[in-house]
Amino acid sequence: MSQASYTIGIDYGTNSVRAVVVDIADGRVVGTRVFGYPSGDQGVLLDPKQPHLARQNPADYIEGLRVSVGDALTAADAEPGFSRERVIGIGVDTTGSTPLPVDAQARPLAVDPRWQDNLAAHAWLWKDHTSAAEAIAITETARAHAPELLAPIGGTYSSEWWWSKIWRCLKVAPDVFDAAASWVELADFVPAVLAGVDDSTKIVRCICAAGHKAMYSEAWGGLPPKAFLSRLDPKLAALRDRLYDKAWAPGRPAGQLSADWARAFGLRESVAIAMGGFDAHYGAVGSGIQPGTLVKIIGTSTCDCAIAPVADKIADIPGICGIVNGSIVPGFFGIEAGQSAVGDLLKWWVEGICQGGDALHAELSAEAATLAPAQSGLVALDWNNGNRTVLVDTRLTGLILGQTLHTTRAEVYRALIEATAYGARAIIERMREYGVAIDRVVCCGGIAEKNGLFMQIYADVIGQPMLIAGSPQTPALGSAVSAAVTAGVANGGYATWDEAQRRMTSLKEQRFAPRPAAKKTYDDLYGIYRELHDAFGGVQDASPDLASLMKRLLAIKERAVHEAP
Amino acid sequence: MSQASYTIGIDYGTNSVRAVVVDIADGRVVGTRVFGYPSGDQGVLLDPKQPHLARQNPADYIEGLRVSVGDALTAADAEPGFSRERVIGIGVDTTGSTPLPVDAQARPLAVDPRWQDNLAAHAWLWKDHTSAAEAIAITETARAHAPELLAPIGGTYSSEWWWSKIWRCLKVAPDVFDAAASWVELADFVPAVLAGVDDSTKIVRCICAAGHKAMYSEAWGGLPPKAFLSRLDPKLAALRDRLYDKAWAPGRPAGQLSADWARAFGLRESVAIAMGGFDAHYGAVGSGIQPGTLVKIIGTSTCDCAIAPVADKIADIPGICGIVNGSIVPGFFGIEAGQSAVGDLLKWWVEGICQGGDALHAELSAEAATLAPAQSGLVALDWNNGNRTVLVDTRLTGLILGQTLHTTRAEVYRALIEATAYGARAIIERMREYGVAIDRVVCCGGIAEKNGLFMQIYADVIGQPMLIAGSPQTPALGSAVSAAVTAGVANGGYATWDEAQRRMTSLKEQRFAPRPAAKKTYDDLYGIYRELHDAFGGVQDASPDLASLMKRLLAIKERAVHEAP
Repeated sequence: MSQASYTIGIDYGTNSVRAVVVDIADGRVVGTRVFGYPSGDQGVLLDPKQPHLARQNPADYIEGLRVSVGDALTAADAEPGFSRERVIGIGVDTTGSTPLPVDAQARPLAVDPRWQDNLAAHAWLWKDHTSAAEAIAITETARAHAPELLAPIGGTYSSEWWWSKIWRCLKVAPDVFDAAASWVELADFVPAVLAGVDDSTKIVRCICAAGHKAMYSEAWGGLPPKAFLSRLDPKLAALRDRLYDKAWAPGRPAGQLSADWARAFGLRESVAIAMGGFDAHYGAVGSGIQPGTLVKIIGTSTCDCAIAPVADKIADIPGICGIVNGSIVPGFFGIEAGQSAVGDLLKWWVEGICQGGDALHAELSAEAATLAPAQSGLVALDWNNGNRTVLVDTRLTGLILGQTLHTTRAEVYRALIEATAYGARAIIERMREYGVAIDRVVCCGGIAEKNGLFMQIYADVIGQPMLIAGSPQTPALGSAVSAAVTAGVANGGYATWDEAQRRMTSLKEQRFAPRPAAKKTYDDLYGIYRELHDAFGGVQDASPDLASLMKRLLAIKERAVHEAP
Repeated sequence: MSQASYTIGIDYGTNSVRAVVVDIADGRVVGTRVFGYPSGDQGVLLDPKQPHLARQNPADYIEGLRVSVGDALTAADAEPGFSRERVIGIGVDTTGSTPLPVDAQARPLAVDPRWQDNLAAHAWLWKDHTSAAEAIAITETARAHAPELLAPIGGTYSSEWWWSKIWRCLKVAPDVFDAAASWVELADFVPAVLAGVDDSTKIVRCICAAGHKAMYSEAWGGLPPKAFLSRLDPKLAALRDRLYDKAWAPGRPAGQLSADWARAFGLRESVAIAMGGFDAHYGAVGSGIQPGTLVKIIGTSTCDCAIAPVADKIADIPGICGIVNGSIVPGFFGIEAGQSAVGDLLKWWVEGICQGGDALHAELSAEAATLAPAQSGLVALDWNNGNRTVLVDTRLTGLILGQTLHTTRAEVYRALIEATAYGARAIIERMREYGVAIDRVVCCGGIAEKNGLFMQIYADVIGQPMLIAGSPQTPALGSAVSAAVTAGVANGGYATWDEAQRRMTSLKEQRFAPRPAAKKTYDDLYGIYRELHDAFGGVQDASPDLASLMKRLLAIKERAVHEAP
């Protein structure tokens, strides 16, 4: 490249949207802006009568686009060498599955005054759990009549996903369902907005959302067959015609910047709009994912991403939420797993139970760091928000075992971190068992950045060094990477994902290596965790020896304390 | 009785000793005094290097006797009609098993300057747990060679009991062991002091301590045979000769007040000294125990007492700590069970985890009272301090199950109360299963007095009304009852226990009746508790369905919340 090129990455989170302007030569951020969604409770529309409901106002997405990108560009203007002329692409990542109903002109129903007071007409945020009954019915129907639909998504359909939510809407707000010309994932909606799409049949759909959340696969010709959808409700089968036949891997453009947005932002109309994608997947890209690398995006919950060459013919992996060709990087299976509560579990303990704030987080973390593995005699199951992988059961609940009258809050804090680490290990073991190589673990997200105790425990439990992504905003960076590849080398971007990632992503120097003695103790504790996990998780052929479990845990404790230096 | 008679009850607790002067006509207290032991940490001698060690200074007992009785009498002097001339008996109850080594003159070794700095020469307080290994070895040896010794004490010998502690002393402080002419339970020591016994072979021993803690039974001629003790250590067999051949039920005098103490207190020398007894047993007497009544003494831990006519030939009851002829009231089997942590469990949560004090106890109690049974979706095992009855396993640990990210501290607080109630129900069910009638439950102790939520949950879980003893000091009152019976009708006392209890004890008007809907829900929750209890407690033939347990618990929750008014 003779001259610097820039791309913009836009990351739609749960409470805010962030835009970054990135120098594609080295991934350096030259301008950024975060915009908090103005509606509801920190951007989330709630209903006091329905605690599982979580919606978002699509108007916030558009206003957030305008403000975050506009202000990020203004910030970039101050950077020497930057010019808006040199912006070659825009990439977008979002939460998901977050579907919203749109009219025939691809406008959200919720911006229409007729529907704006109806929560069903807004975006159904990923963490909306009103569709539990629908998820169960979809899973049961598929098991009975079309088990192949479930195989690539881990065997169980989730209440957080596309069809559960749309079916729920059909049941509780049939007028909204009937008024919707189509439904669109937020990850596809924003690129369509940027590209000025004004026809709902012309929205370009990403394989990422389609394959992981909507049971889309080329193996059965796209979305689930009408015969299957009819078993749920004939209206869902009819909707299929108004959705899409084809979904695309990243790299292909979702369009070009519309004249209106180009004018608003002072950008060229030739700017490429990358395919949208989920935050976790673009976060994996921004963390430098490659075959053999597991990227752990550690926040309130965790998303684990790996890729494997399509040639490897990875089998369906029970309990792994999704294996989709091209969902993260084209030419590779994108493999997604996750834990339902990680940061949230610590937050529950520190804020909900101990009623402290950041200072107490730090205090408990410091005190927990002085404890040896197994010293507390505690083992917990990390299921306060269910188990996403490998049990795929949102209704499981938490468990803490081994308490004495002397058990401290810092001991429980550490035990909860350990529980999430055991959960992380269970995911890695399952992937390996089914042929996915994992020889490198890269972590990103707030906890990875800030909590050294957490990272050390993960290294000790998993038995691998924990590496940390160089960027604190890997999803936005990954979107910018995608934009650079989508723009292509002819426009000043990159020809390959590999090259773009090598140039634009990095690792921090700090890494956490497993300590052999701690790993040995954690191997024993993980055995206890697995017994509880398999027994309470309903794993077939689980044969726990619970009668001796508390004593064996004490024996591990006594050995560990005795051997401590 | 033509003229009022008075007795004195003296209750040696863990941190203090209380004396009450009681009008035996109606049990009214006319003078009282509490004396905090001056030594150690609130009366307990600790060793930072041995966290399980808990000893007491015998000098505190004697000073406490002098001050508490002296001041209680002074207070009584102010009461119209009271006269020291009319005091006819003194009764003593103490913690136990709390053995101490004495010299040939029945003086505690610890008051000898040669031994006063040696913690092994002091009293080994009931909650001293340094003898865990000895308890295990005694249990194993008895199981192999003399299983009959264990049958009346529930099948497992405890680290809190007589032989464990004396054997431990022999191992870690052989010089102390060798210097001891004999060993004596605190419950026998204080009456001997009052009676002026100056020969260790003349100390009168109570069946209460002997039968429940020292494996004494007339069935094998008193203390365990030398052949058995020799298997532990020949020196223990030799010690047997320096202990006692016979132990006595209450009602028989332990002696008469010595001239020195009579002079010191201004009492007549003819005052009868009742047999000593454990606080729980005399607490049961002071609560009006009779056949069919279970007395629950609810404090940091719980002691449950029942009596059954000897004619009923109650069999040994597995897991019930002790069944001893005459240990509570003569002519009845005294049956003792208990829970290792009740108040302590709540204290752990409120003070240890939530780091609050009395105000937080009250706040959580009030908030927990607004919750319906099962609403929290939590079930806990009450084993943070092991399980005394019916599993008899001090090494079991706690468990809390069913947490979500919304679980509150008040919900856990309630779940812990419920767990202790389930533990209480397990004890009652076991007693009934083996033929002990329980048709009336009388509670005493601080929690019974103060915590209405706690009492209501117990009524709902157990399915019986919870009655509350009229006296806030039932052990001291029970000792005064014993003194009135021991003095006898000829001296102005009572001829029978039944009459003395009817006159001197009472119930509060307030009682807590089971609520049918709550009882129904708790029956279901108790089923879940029992599955966990039996599985983790190592009950043979436990066949828990753990794979469905968390879901069944949620179903109970959903039903309960749905049916709530």
